[in-house]
Amino acid sequence: MTLEEAQQLDAADPLAFARERFALPPGAVYLDGNSLGALPKATAARIDKTVREQWGGDLIASWNKHDWIDAPTRIAAKLAPIIGARPEELLIADSTSVCLFKLLAAAVRARPGRSTILTETGNFPTDLYVAQGMTRLWPDLRLKMVDADDIAAAIDADTAAVTLTHVNYRSGRRHDMAAINAAARAAGALSLWDLSHSAGAIALDLDGTACDLAVGCGYKYLNGGPGAPAFVFVAGPLQSELETPLPGWMGHADPFAFAAEYAPAAGMMQWLTGTPSILALAALDAGLDSFAGVAIANIEAKAAQLTGLFIDEVEVRCGAEVQLAGPRDPKTRGSQVSFAFPQGYAVMQALIARGIIGDFRAPDLMRFGFAPLYNRFADAIRAAEELADILATRSWDEPRFLARQKVT
Amino acid sequence: MTLEEAQQLDAADPLAFARERFALPPGAVYLDGNSLGALPKATAARIDKTVREQWGGDLIASWNKHDWIDAPTRIAAKLAPIIGARPEELLIADSTSVCLFKLLAAAVRARPGRSTILTETGNFPTDLYVAQGMTRLWPDLRLKMVDADDIAAAIDADTAAVTLTHVNYRSGRRHDMAAINAAARAAGALSLWDLSHSAGAIALDLDGTACDLAVGCGYKYLNGGPGAPAFVFVAGPLQSELETPLPGWMGHADPFAFAAEYAPAAGMMQWLTGTPSILALAALDAGLDSFAGVAIANIEAKAAQLTGLFIDEVEVRCGAEVQLAGPRDPKTRGSQVSFAFPQGYAVMQALIARGIIGDFRAPDLMRFGFAPLYNRFADAIRAAEELADILATRSWDEPRFLARQKVT
Repeated sequence: MTLEEAQQLDAADPLAFARERFALPPGAVYLDGNSLGALPKATAARIDKTVREQWGGDLIASWNKHDWIDAPTRIAAKLAPIIGARPEELLIADSTSVCLFKLLAAAVRARPGRSTILTETGNFPTDLYVAQGMTRLWPDLRLKMVDADDIAAAIDADTAAVTLTHVNYRSGRRHDMAAINAAARAAGALSLWDLSHSAGAIALDLDGTACDLAVGCGYKYLNGGPGAPAFVFVAGPLQSELETPLPGWMGHADPFAFAAEYAPAAGMMQWLTGTPSILALAALDAGLDSFAGVAIANIEAKAAQLTGLFIDEVEVRCGAEVQLAGPRDPKTRGSQVSFAFPQGYAVMQALIARGIIGDFRAPDLMRFGFAPLYNRFADAIRAAEELADILATRSWDEPRFLARQKVT
Repeated sequence: MTLEEAQQLDAADPLAFARERFALPPGAVYLDGNSLGALPKATAARIDKTVREQWGGDLIASWNKHDWIDAPTRIAAKLAPIIGARPEELLIADSTSVCLFKLLAAAVRARPGRSTILTETGNFPTDLYVAQGMTRLWPDLRLKMVDADDIAAAIDADTAAVTLTHVNYRSGRRHDMAAINAAARAAGALSLWDLSHSAGAIALDLDGTACDLAVGCGYKYLNGGPGAPAFVFVAGPLQSELETPLPGWMGHADPFAFAAEYAPAAGMMQWLTGTPSILALAALDAGLDSFAGVAIANIEAKAAQLTGLFIDEVEVRCGAEVQLAGPRDPKTRGSQVSFAFPQGYAVMQALIARGIIGDFRAPDLMRFGFAPLYNRFADAIRAAEELADILATRSWDEPRFLARQKVT
């Protein structure tokens, strides 16, 4: 496909209006929204108002006057249509890792007598580390890792919880959520999904696929800013059964009674622990507003088209020099594409120097994320063209591209 | 003391320059910096630059280019002189409640065979709830609560950890940190201090008083903004002994190796779990900069003078109508004063309506926090005068002042 043909697709794109909501650097092709989402144009003013008028002007009164106290559920409600959940099943809190701990510990405690946490070999490290940490805290627990294809079959009567990242951070492979949820339920286990690489990028239907528990990242496709707070989902029927392992004053039924004994708040508020960052919440709020009026079916369709086009155009231009490291079928893929190349790190640095911004995952993956809200078909063509040129000219082979940085 | 005499004290105050660093609402007397610190003038621009130039302009490259990756320790280092610790003993992370869990769980695990967490009756609720939650996770643990005066004597061979808030949130009473640390050490227990109501308000010497562990709040006297991240202190000798119960990818020795097995980072970085909010960190960074060039001895002296003056002037003007609910000796007091009055809630609302902003703690405490960086001697006089007038005229007895709000 030529650049001009891609631009015609962009002109006909039903999501084209959404790109106008983002402040993208001129000329850049940003394909790392799966790591850090782009800045919505509305965010800076939203935060500035929160800082100057609310914090600075109204000070402590802002907790009531600007309803800071309900922000974790009010903002979470905006996420509901994006992930197919009900507003009262969602909360914004902490980081993804801390939320994973809360839900996984609660899930295991809700299944006494079962000792296995089941996950996928190659799950995102923090998901593995949180579970590994739990096996150190509770030595009767064990973490069982199996290949992605073997998850459903590995769920048994000893499985307390199945914890998976829906879309694999390296390969972009997407799990069949409904099938795994059904297998977990049939075995009496709870499902806990990490939606960090799915939410806002592809269609999700947490209630329709009968998810039990989920967490996800606010700073990737949800555009909530670097280190944005995470979200927590607890399916309605489980809310009275599960108990947070991290009770704190903001999750108390009546925080301002300052009672000596903890009593959980009703609904999702029990999953709040300490005082949330109001500034970080304001940024995430603006990030979620960038989804206003967007049909999730269009997100799903555009994700498939963008990633499919990029795969095709890279393979046409680069031949066998790079290997696709993920699914070809868009139904089993998230909105990201990885290609393996032995000097992938240096190639990615060379791409970044040309304004094509993806990232690298050791040992050899060049990773390209496509954010359906703001990425264009023309971006896929430009990225494929530059990648082919860098490989053909070996222009990655320079000290400045080979030198490793702290964050890759 | 007259307002004019107080203004003369303000003119001679060696900390007068620091008040100029804050954007306080004109005319207001803000005495709630112990709940939410005031907005530094530098903060809004700092955040805006972080949002627009770093996140918006440099996107993912900011992790290296603007060294976001080291922000939790780089910003923590600014706290070191404020609390008498070494930079390498500090980290910014999560919320106070989550940090309390991390350190308390680690402390208990470092003292196997001991089953008691000792605390004070009337400790801040979140400190109690975190410990209560631990006794539900590990049923062989118990939480023992004794009166403040009985703490040292209650430490015994079964005590794993003594966890106390240094300055009580209601009374303003200050514990003798050195004495309790010595008693804990003699018994083989670990000390864990919550410095939320001390840090930035009074002199602290964590290393000089041989503290083991501490956490504290970023949004009170440190002026880091609503819900600012917390800080964590682990004394140097303990850093290799203690293990976080919440391992996450940002606390890994080599996060960007994406290893399957957790290995703790060296030093304080192991206490980081998930990705921190860079926007919240930027605000806390500006908050800590408001201490630049400030001698902590001057903070301690001014806290004693401000609170002492306020106590005297309230008692002179109000007589026995209100009861001081805290220490008279400034050496045993933080930088806050509470007076008990049966209709304290309504009186506080009436004060707020006159621009004197304190807060209320059930059932009957009117709480006044004095932030030495920006509160003035004239503030103490104005607050005492308005309080006396409201009591004398019973002008608190109006429906608008009696109606309870969500946050008090």
